[in-house]
Amino acid sequence: MITPKLTTLENQAIAHGLNVSDGHPRMPLTPSQRAIVADLSDMFEEAAKRPFQEIEQDAHRAFLHGIGQYAAPVGEGRLVSCYSSSIAIDIIARTLAERTAAVALVHPTFDNIPDLLRARNLRLFPISEREFEQGQPELPAEAGAVFVTTPNNPTGWVLGRESLERLAAWCATHGRVLVMDTCFRAQDARAQYDTYQIIRDSGAEWVVIEDTGKLWPMHELKAGFLAWGERTRLAIPDAFDDLLLTASPVVLLLITRLARDAADGGYAELARLIGENRRTLGEITRLSGLVLEEPDSRISVAMLGLPDCAGTATDLYHQLLEDNVHVLPCDAFYWARATDGERRIRVALGRAPAEIRAAADALAGVTARICAARRR
Amino acid sequence: MITPKLTTLENQAIAHGLNVSDGHPRMPLTPSQRAIVADLSDMFEEAAKRPFQEIEQDAHRAFLHGIGQYAAPVGEGRLVSCYSSSIAIDIIARTLAERTAAVALVHPTFDNIPDLLRARNLRLFPISEREFEQGQPELPAEAGAVFVTTPNNPTGWVLGRESLERLAAWCATHGRVLVMDTCFRAQDARAQYDTYQIIRDSGAEWVVIEDTGKLWPMHELKAGFLAWGERTRLAIPDAFDDLLLTASPVVLLLITRLARDAADGGYAELARLIGENRRTLGEITRLSGLVLEEPDSRISVAMLGLPDCAGTATDLYHQLLEDNVHVLPCDAFYWARATDGERRIRVALGRAPAEIRAAADALAGVTARICAARRR
Repeated sequence: MITPKLTTLENQAIAHGLNVSDGHPRMPLTPSQRAIVADLSDMFEEAAKRPFQEIEQDAHRAFLHGIGQYAAPVGEGRLVSCYSSSIAIDIIARTLAERTAAVALVHPTFDNIPDLLRARNLRLFPISEREFEQGQPELPAEAGAVFVTTPNNPTGWVLGRESLERLAAWCATHGRVLVMDTCFRAQDARAQYDTYQIIRDSGAEWVVIEDTGKLWPMHELKAGFLAWGERTRLAIPDAFDDLLLTASPVVLLLITRLARDAADGGYAELARLIGENRRTLGEITRLSGLVLEEPDSRISVAMLGLPDCAGTATDLYHQLLEDNVHVLPCDAFYWARATDGERRIRVALGRAPAEIRAAADALAGVTARICAARRR
Repeated sequence: MITPKLTTLENQAIAHGLNVSDGHPRMPLTPSQRAIVADLSDMFEEAAKRPFQEIEQDAHRAFLHGIGQYAAPVGEGRLVSCYSSSIAIDIIARTLAERTAAVALVHPTFDNIPDLLRARNLRLFPISEREFEQGQPELPAEAGAVFVTTPNNPTGWVLGRESLERLAAWCATHGRVLVMDTCFRAQDARAQYDTYQIIRDSGAEWVVIEDTGKLWPMHELKAGFLAWGERTRLAIPDAFDDLLLTASPVVLLLITRLARDAADGGYAELARLIGENRRTLGEITRLSGLVLEEPDSRISVAMLGLPDCAGTATDLYHQLLEDNVHVLPCDAFYWARATDGERRIRVALGRAPAEIRAAADALAGVTARICAARRR
């Protein structure tokens, strides 16, 4: 059976029922976010009056400094705003394919990353999170680049400072491009050490993809930021220019406001919500034998392991669909070895607590039902 | 010399001076557009309350029916909303490359189209506008698809109904994919015959790219729509899912409002502005020997031919830069034969009349200066 794309399943969840499928933030606005959104028309007027470059740099600075990235190349001509982080990833996929035939990629990770790389005819080598942690991973000679998602989706795993230093030094020595997808980092302070300082100092060719789209329930008014190093010899400006002229200055003004609000307590509030939702999910579902994997993860998705009696994640997924509850089976995250994910599901946590409780109840109920039927 | 990408030059224009470079609409809002923008926060609230699919279909219907496209596949599952038309073009480039090694493409056209196709390793064959008009063009056997931009940029040329019928029938008979980029059609009623009816009836595999981004000065709050036929065997849903989950429902609500306003007089007002700006540009610049090419074009850019004494478009471009006036030299539009564009410049018309007058004065002045210097 062909594993359907994660986004295809997520899209079905948007149409119907209880959606804890996609990782996009869908919780209610906080009071201060509500006040910001009320100013959207003013931001539109402001966008008409101020130079785009100034608006864009404000957004870069507010967002990146707010998550500890002081050495990001703001205003240095090597930082662009894309419609989304996926567009940024695709730009990188194109430029990598002009340079190498293969990429070493973290395993597991969200499937659109391997799919976008493969669509550019890049061959992929899986590197486990543990390999990144335990000394320098063995990277195949063919792989001209290393692509690591940190914090990773769906595990929440974070590449530590020493591991990054080691990896970046190795990339510098061996002439490989280091690509970091840090789209979830604003949710986890452990990923907010200044990675730009480390990779700049390393001498490596590097690229970083940042994202504002996982944080605030803004109905896809968001941006992906794409930064690269002085030494990075990839034709990123050309690939960018083929796809867009500029992001929307209205969206960038919105991001500036949201980033300031987030640094001023919003990130803490988000972390509390995600933490509470993760605990609720774990507590309710473990009554039916589901296991919250990576309980120390801070990102806005959780992974649950299935009890033996519950069959595969795909079975459970389809059973839940009958109750109009949408989760994600994890097969496709394990892009090189789908069996590693076939007894795991992912639940999105960027939701109102009541939605998480309802989803957890449904999950526990359906799992118990499946297990009871199998025992009979 | 390598011709710089048109978007690269446009980007420089955004930073400084008088920008008649990019074709994005940068005129003042009309009173009714101003009233719509004032409701942005309400649209945000509405996006939270209504199902996405309903919001999206409203936008598709309002926009496409407003420009005569009643047979577009609204609500049929073969019409998606992308962040922009360029993203839609790139999705098509990817899926075409999975099917064929070469594409027949209209010549000239905006350079990001050939560049996005080439970035997918597709070989390109140029087909002139005249060839599309005079009977069935001779299309090379290797080309698995025909890509035509209508109205075309920068010429404003429109593929007529009979020519489309002939082309679609030929594609159906010969198993080629017909790709239509109709991003400028809302500006030209001559391109608003129901093309979907024709291509559906033809039996061909077809794809159409529509765009809301050339019409209203919305600071890049826009969408590209991508539609395809029942018989079209391209993996468009997969390529779409790799890039995005959904467009922003806030933007789609904005498009619905703008499209209704446009059908209710807004398109006529836009046509008046563009027509007036084209006349102003032609009248002022002809005093220095510049010639308004394609005076019957209705789209929001104009092409000017240079007098012999003025040298090349690139020379004129650089001279104008010194006065902080940004136009586009046309070399890159003529992607297969840049020399055809080297004595032409493109001027954007989606601007306030005073800006066009200032740009025209500068153009006339600089051209006269160059010619006088050469005569000495």
